[in-house]
Amino acid sequence: MGVLCIDVKGYILRPSSGFFMDYSGVYPSSSKLYVRGSLYSDISVGMRKVAIKNGTSEFLVYDTGGPYTDREAKLDIGSGIQKLRKAWIANRRDTSSVRRSFVPSESSCTRYQKAADNVLRKTAGGSPVTQLFYAQNGIITPEMEYVAIRENALRMQGDSSGTGVTHQAITPEFVRQEIAAGRAIIPSNVNHPESEPMVIGRNFLVKINANIGNSAVLSGIEEEVKKMALAVAYGADTVMDLSTGSDIHNIREWIIRNSPVPIGTVPIYQALNKVKGVVENLSFEVFKETIIEQAEQGVDYFTIHAGVLKDYIKYARNRVTGIVSRGGAIMAQWCLSHNKENFLYTHFDEICEIMGSYDVAFSLGDGLRPGSIDDANDEAQFLELKTLGELVKIAWSHSCQVMVEGPGHVPMHLIKENMEKQLHLCSEAPFYTLGPLTTDIAPGYDHITSAIGAAMIGWYGTAMLCYVTPKEHLGLPNIDDVKAGVISYKIAAHAADLAKGNPSAYARDYALSQARFDFRWYDQFNLSLDPLTAKSLHDESLPGKGGKTANFCSMCGPKFCSMKLSKELVDR
Amino acid sequence: MGVLCIDVKGYILRPSSGFFMDYSGVYPSSSKLYVRGSLYSDISVGMRKVAIKNGTSEFLVYDTGGPYTDREAKLDIGSGIQKLRKAWIANRRDTSSVRRSFVPSESSCTRYQKAADNVLRKTAGGSPVTQLFYAQNGIITPEMEYVAIRENALRMQGDSSGTGVTHQAITPEFVRQEIAAGRAIIPSNVNHPESEPMVIGRNFLVKINANIGNSAVLSGIEEEVKKMALAVAYGADTVMDLSTGSDIHNIREWIIRNSPVPIGTVPIYQALNKVKGVVENLSFEVFKETIIEQAEQGVDYFTIHAGVLKDYIKYARNRVTGIVSRGGAIMAQWCLSHNKENFLYTHFDEICEIMGSYDVAFSLGDGLRPGSIDDANDEAQFLELKTLGELVKIAWSHSCQVMVEGPGHVPMHLIKENMEKQLHLCSEAPFYTLGPLTTDIAPGYDHITSAIGAAMIGWYGTAMLCYVTPKEHLGLPNIDDVKAGVISYKIAAHAADLAKGNPSAYARDYALSQARFDFRWYDQFNLSLDPLTAKSLHDESLPGKGGKTANFCSMCGPKFCSMKLSKELVDR
Repeated sequence: MGVLCIDVKGYILRPSSGFFMDYSGVYPSSSKLYVRGSLYSDISVGMRKVAIKNGTSEFLVYDTGGPYTDREAKLDIGSGIQKLRKAWIANRRDTSSVRRSFVPSESSCTRYQKAADNVLRKTAGGSPVTQLFYAQNGIITPEMEYVAIRENALRMQGDSSGTGVTHQAITPEFVRQEIAAGRAIIPSNVNHPESEPMVIGRNFLVKINANIGNSAVLSGIEEEVKKMALAVAYGADTVMDLSTGSDIHNIREWIIRNSPVPIGTVPIYQALNKVKGVVENLSFEVFKETIIEQAEQGVDYFTIHAGVLKDYIKYARNRVTGIVSRGGAIMAQWCLSHNKENFLYTHFDEICEIMGSYDVAFSLGDGLRPGSIDDANDEAQFLELKTLGELVKIAWSHSCQVMVEGPGHVPMHLIKENMEKQLHLCSEAPFYTLGPLTTDIAPGYDHITSAIGAAMIGWYGTAMLCYVTPKEHLGLPNIDDVKAGVISYKIAAHAADLAKGNPSAYARDYALSQARFDFRWYDQFNLSLDPLTAKSLHDESLPGKGGKTANFCSMCGPKFCSMKLSKELVDR
Repeated sequence: MGVLCIDVKGYILRPSSGFFMDYSGVYPSSSKLYVRGSLYSDISVGMRKVAIKNGTSEFLVYDTGGPYTDREAKLDIGSGIQKLRKAWIANRRDTSSVRRSFVPSESSCTRYQKAADNVLRKTAGGSPVTQLFYAQNGIITPEMEYVAIRENALRMQGDSSGTGVTHQAITPEFVRQEIAAGRAIIPSNVNHPESEPMVIGRNFLVKINANIGNSAVLSGIEEEVKKMALAVAYGADTVMDLSTGSDIHNIREWIIRNSPVPIGTVPIYQALNKVKGVVENLSFEVFKETIIEQAEQGVDYFTIHAGVLKDYIKYARNRVTGIVSRGGAIMAQWCLSHNKENFLYTHFDEICEIMGSYDVAFSLGDGLRPGSIDDANDEAQFLELKTLGELVKIAWSHSCQVMVEGPGHVPMHLIKENMEKQLHLCSEAPFYTLGPLTTDIAPGYDHITSAIGAAMIGWYGTAMLCYVTPKEHLGLPNIDDVKAGVISYKIAAHAADLAKGNPSAYARDYALSQARFDFRWYDQFNLSLDPLTAKSLHDESLPGKGGKTANFCSMCGPKFCSMKLSKELVDR
């Protein structure tokens, strides 16, 4: 397929021809700032700097966009983005270069294969090469300092001073401690050096994940790479490639080589494809081959449904919506057709050894999560959670990084129990939930039904929120759905950060509200999650320069603007 | 302007020419069912009946749409809708017909004026004609039986039997008790006989309000009537006409004569228009004239900012966003410019007498509500709330129905305190909140930032949620914004009903999820809040009949559909 020429309709692109993809236009008045490390001089953390007050001041924002939000970056999708972590990984001298053990015959990614020369990294000796292993041994890695700087983005400026929220900087040593305790992870496969380190843990900013990926019915490589770039530009902290259709290996290669955020997958999907969709023909051997293939490519975390035990399946039989996790349903069917225990469970130690050899993190899948309000918090769900808690300890004994997945569909009053049980049963390993959706009755709007639950569970302590798009239950999300999902979840995560008292979060609300009260319209737009949308809605009624300097808007008009009246009071 | 010819682009209309407005097309497979009263034989409560399982079963839904969701209704916007309550009001024999004391010269509503012959109703003697007065005197009115039947819509069917949620019917006597205790209100101006009674109180279904109305910058009569009809078709329980622009009296007349839901206003807006926008020239006399004019027209509840006391204003001075309530800012400016106490406070008893003469309910405005996260739950806000609590008791002493307005912008962890303080300070009078918005940083998406807070505060006990549209902070909502706001708030209210354990709410989630698991696609769409949107999103990838009978969708495709796999397990 050669080189992709990306043109993303509906989003401002830098005028360019050919091989560049650039979303920096979605943030007018923003530019990229790179902050150097102190422990490691070759660390350079990208942040987004929003110019405000006619350029006399600025505001720093945590930026997941990598090169896609950098006006200066030259980006060739056909060759992949900068390999930020390459030297850090090599310098640790605990990995060696080996040839890929799995080169799929159907591959069309000739450019990547040539560039990489089929070389990859893997543990050189017996010890795992995970961030957890380093942390347990008292080592602060460049990845740890990187995320410490990143999390401090807003603390570094004085803008939250008026909020009364105490500043307390995140130190690299604090990061190390959280990783060592298993309370946080930095997904960072040694074969995904393009990834900018980020941390998932409840003592850090709440993160969000965007799911992309094709299905047998829809979508191809170009569309999926676009979705990834758009998602990270708007703030996705990780991206999961859930492709289940054709060309899975190649789609993943294009995505990983161009992704500045960690990539997650559910390997059982590709394993099932390898046995042509016949669940009975799955085996641990096929699964093992698949996770090695994906670990070599650079996937940063795997969802593994090892907690769907044979004996638990009966508890899902009387549910309204049975088993709604794809991986869960696959493993349940396998267990019953062979009358055997889940092979992901019985081979868990072996899986841990593979994960540790590349530093692929576990995301322990909740195969029995509830798919409807009526099924929430039932026996099937919590029995599995208990098993996931046992698997967390096994993963840790192999020094593997691990997080635990959670539901699903849960009415508001039952959300907190999910978080409390997870903290207790899973020894405080990070929780990573899908929503939860707080009602079943709004297909077409499940980004909203679930943003409600996501915000709440984020406040209660969930470390990462997996987005839900308007297309949930109805079809494969397109690029507009991806954007709607990402923005909805940035809102949920930010609302959770505020409720948790994070000073970075307060600083941004404070700065935006000041701009609002001062009628600095452009500052209000530019400090928001989606400046172009905010501006275009304002343009609908008061387009042009006049509207942007007016001390009112069309909602109330000049005589009825409360802010205008209120400012006059203050100025008395 | 004569007769309006409404054609609403983007929504399915019954093929008709001329004078009819019909939103029944937005609910395919639905028809209207009318349930008769038992205490009062002339009660006929409209509900929406969704045909499911190929027409072999049906599901009843609470319906706010009035004639707009009735395929059979003949509707002439130029003459107004059916006067449902006319006989009930007359039969009470406590009102008499009088001529309008206020006929604005600029009126163009010739048809209505002819039809009404400028006759209106008003208390005949000294006693108030309020639902509270009747309830206090042990009388169950037709309005009370009507809302009891309405609230029972879903309890009347067996569909929630599988949910384990206990059925307990709402009786007319229970409604009377709640009204008598002041815990609930039925806004029902004797001059708005077109209104279908609905109840606002925390022991009933959570309600939502949609704001419409023009500003000096935008919009006219036709647009506003469209917004009202669309809002009620999608589920708005009340509508506030917040017009501040030209032709306020006439816009309101068209809206009231065609509205099947209670209409609220903020009379100070029109009062300010009468003094040409010069706040200093406001007086109680102008205000009094205005509320009489609006009470005569049929407005069902007034937002009155009587709690913005002169001494409280200083507490708002150091806020990030000062005073963000339009009414609050107006009254604050008046107090300071005259150095006098708020005339709405000093004349509160007189206002009560007027309200009681027509049964206009109070919605005590929170003029000092926070307009940014940083200002939430501050002294200004809670001082005013305490005063509102005192005013509640005065209103009750006049047998006036009253609810209390709440914020605003509040981070999640501070939401509960708002509800608790309101219950305590305001003697359990119903709470009616605007959102709250859980972050300031997403202009363009404030229907979502606020749906999060609205769902939570609804769960905690708020009786009615005032919607926020995507246009909030940016401009006057258009008809698409109105729809987005209404759907978002139906989600929030429903999520709150679920969290409160309301069996009606559970029944719908249960029925929809059963349809989902059975791959009854059309049933899933038709049981949802917005069937046309759900179907159109599904159509994007699997259009036509084939996609609607498939046991999978494009999200996962046939091999990876968890529900399909899961059903196979159940069927083993």
